[in-house]
Amino acid sequence: MNFEFSNRVQDLHGSAIREAFKALSKPGMISFAGGMPAPEMFPNVELAKIANDILLNRSNIALQYGITEGYAPLIAQVKSRLNKIGVGNEGDQTIIVTGGQQGIELITKALINENDGIACENPSFVGALNAFRSYNAKLYGVDMEKDGMNVDMLDDVLTKNKNIKFVYTIPTFQNPTGITMSLAKRKQLLEVAKKHNIFILEDNPYGELRFYGEDIPTIKSMDTDNRVIYVGSFSKILSPGLRLGFLCADETLIEKVVVCKQVSDVHTNIFAQMLASEYLSEYDIDEQIKKSKELYGAKCKLMKDCIEKYFPKNVTSTSPQGGIFLWCDMNNGVDSKIISAKVLERNVAIVPGAGAMPNSNVVTSAFRLNYSTAADEKIVQGISALGEVLYEYGK
Amino acid sequence: MNFEFSNRVQDLHGSAIREAFKALSKPGMISFAGGMPAPEMFPNVELAKIANDILLNRSNIALQYGITEGYAPLIAQVKSRLNKIGVGNEGDQTIIVTGGQQGIELITKALINENDGIACENPSFVGALNAFRSYNAKLYGVDMEKDGMNVDMLDDVLTKNKNIKFVYTIPTFQNPTGITMSLAKRKQLLEVAKKHNIFILEDNPYGELRFYGEDIPTIKSMDTDNRVIYVGSFSKILSPGLRLGFLCADETLIEKVVVCKQVSDVHTNIFAQMLASEYLSEYDIDEQIKKSKELYGAKCKLMKDCIEKYFPKNVTSTSPQGGIFLWCDMNNGVDSKIISAKVLERNVAIVPGAGAMPNSNVVTSAFRLNYSTAADEKIVQGISALGEVLYEYGK
Repeated sequence: MNFEFSNRVQDLHGSAIREAFKALSKPGMISFAGGMPAPEMFPNVELAKIANDILLNRSNIALQYGITEGYAPLIAQVKSRLNKIGVGNEGDQTIIVTGGQQGIELITKALINENDGIACENPSFVGALNAFRSYNAKLYGVDMEKDGMNVDMLDDVLTKNKNIKFVYTIPTFQNPTGITMSLAKRKQLLEVAKKHNIFILEDNPYGELRFYGEDIPTIKSMDTDNRVIYVGSFSKILSPGLRLGFLCADETLIEKVVVCKQVSDVHTNIFAQMLASEYLSEYDIDEQIKKSKELYGAKCKLMKDCIEKYFPKNVTSTSPQGGIFLWCDMNNGVDSKIISAKVLERNVAIVPGAGAMPNSNVVTSAFRLNYSTAADEKIVQGISALGEVLYEYGK
Repeated sequence: MNFEFSNRVQDLHGSAIREAFKALSKPGMISFAGGMPAPEMFPNVELAKIANDILLNRSNIALQYGITEGYAPLIAQVKSRLNKIGVGNEGDQTIIVTGGQQGIELITKALINENDGIACENPSFVGALNAFRSYNAKLYGVDMEKDGMNVDMLDDVLTKNKNIKFVYTIPTFQNPTGITMSLAKRKQLLEVAKKHNIFILEDNPYGELRFYGEDIPTIKSMDTDNRVIYVGSFSKILSPGLRLGFLCADETLIEKVVVCKQVSDVHTNIFAQMLASEYLSEYDIDEQIKKSKELYGAKCKLMKDCIEKYFPKNVTSTSPQGGIFLWCDMNNGVDSKIISAKVLERNVAIVPGAGAMPNSNVVTSAFRLNYSTAADEKIVQGISALGEVLYEYGK
């Protein structure tokens, strides 16, 4: 039969990263493409013990319908962890969502009319950009600098575009650049958002994965008027497969988001919520996070050393102090999709930068590398192969 | 700070049932309000064994990111089960979703522009109605008869309203009425949908729970032109807490739904998908379903006997041949919300019919009763208490 899609999704295409994901199962593939935590960091033995206990003794809760807001003990634990970093004011509320991605999608659904604007870092996280596009939001890119978003430029963009409802930022170990926003810029961002009376959507999935330098306060921790919508996730510190994230924001906004979540998936998998809750009660997740940080710090250093050794000098790369990504740029106008295709022939997967651009028609010579999953020898081998391709096609 | 919600959700309110859910934890409460499977039907011991095995041996899959379409072995198993009932044509595709609810929401997002219409049974499932409302769809109610939707009325509604994109139906053991659409009407519905070139969204969460009479083919099984979008669920036959459903529809439509799912929750919890898959491989789910059917058949009969004994004669009730709901009507213009409030004072929860109406401003003397979860003695006690309230306020 003939049919048409809705205007909002007519031109929506899947993330190239998600599509690449299917190719990654190819034997021998070295992947710098995903955004996956290292599987050896999963506390699977502990979770097996907990799962057994829950299913044998509390299956009437774990397997039954639950309330949309989330499993109450887990909400309390998340609140307590957020309080430690100053997140959550009077007038805020916290709920569990089916991964941080759902938090971003629900906030967009609740706030954005067609042709409303959203200011985004340029480049930014493709999953968020596509969620915004799926509601026909207009995206306004704000350039990234070495210390985060150019907030002066944001101020200018907001002055010229009164349709913008919120600014989306990943201030810490940003996806895709690995860049962290300075404290000064965080404060300035809050002031600019206040001046233009818009929300800040602060996405912080990597914030706990700092392997170098000092923590910088979250923007939410400096928020005095419930202006910051904070999205967090268990994906990078416990498990992405369980699809557990959380939102902390103005309680009126959260009430509406709960209604939106009800029609979206009723509630987040209760068994998964109980697994996380029991893990937080019975084990030391901070010890677990510490191990991940050590691993990712070492892998990042190794990748940087290999880049230094194998890449031509025109290629610049960021130096993340945490998280799982770094960002390279050939600085020569060559489309990184060419590099991505050529290196894939050598069984190395990278993510060309175009998908991360708010303006999806832009050609970019930048690309993203992930260092959290590949084994050390694969990092050496893969960056070496990528270096050869860059010498041939990207110099 | 001051802000406005998007037009699409400004007037969206939570389901009264979901709100009532929070009150149901009150000790001593007898609930006929939910739509929950009986917890004693959960195969928790088997799932504990499977969970342990998966987490100890395949946590690198279970806890990691997965592909949006779903866990491949589970998709194959779902397809095989659907093929047995004739669901799934050439040109169709099947994916896993985070509960049937997500399937309904994603289809709506992909197909409905603001002010497009959706034809719905009157009454219908509030979760679906609210999903439609959350995209500013216009709802067109089509009256229910003893053998299902009045398809002549549907034809008339479609002739008068060219903005209608699909008709939503739960043809088997409908929520909230428990009514099953006759074979003749299913065939007529397909003809009418073809005549007006619209999709049929066939929601079938209860279809496997027939405890009396003969199975009637699904509408999808008679579909020859990929016109029927079939939504199924593991919620009523395995566990709702795991949030596992599936969609089978035209592959072009499914491809777009996958993109929408990507921005909604990336993918459905992999661990939960593996639990279901292994359960289907290692155990006999049909044997499990048979036990549920016997239990629900007995509980339905008990509730019907109690209704006969304790309700005033003005109250009519449906006689479901399966599923978990029946529908009562005082037939007297008395608002069933009054009954619901009065009987709640006696610790008995029912669902007033208003929430199930496509036109949410309608006052109705009808209400929904669920018989799958309350213990037998609670059914007797609760229906007796409800009968007293009906004699006092609803005669």
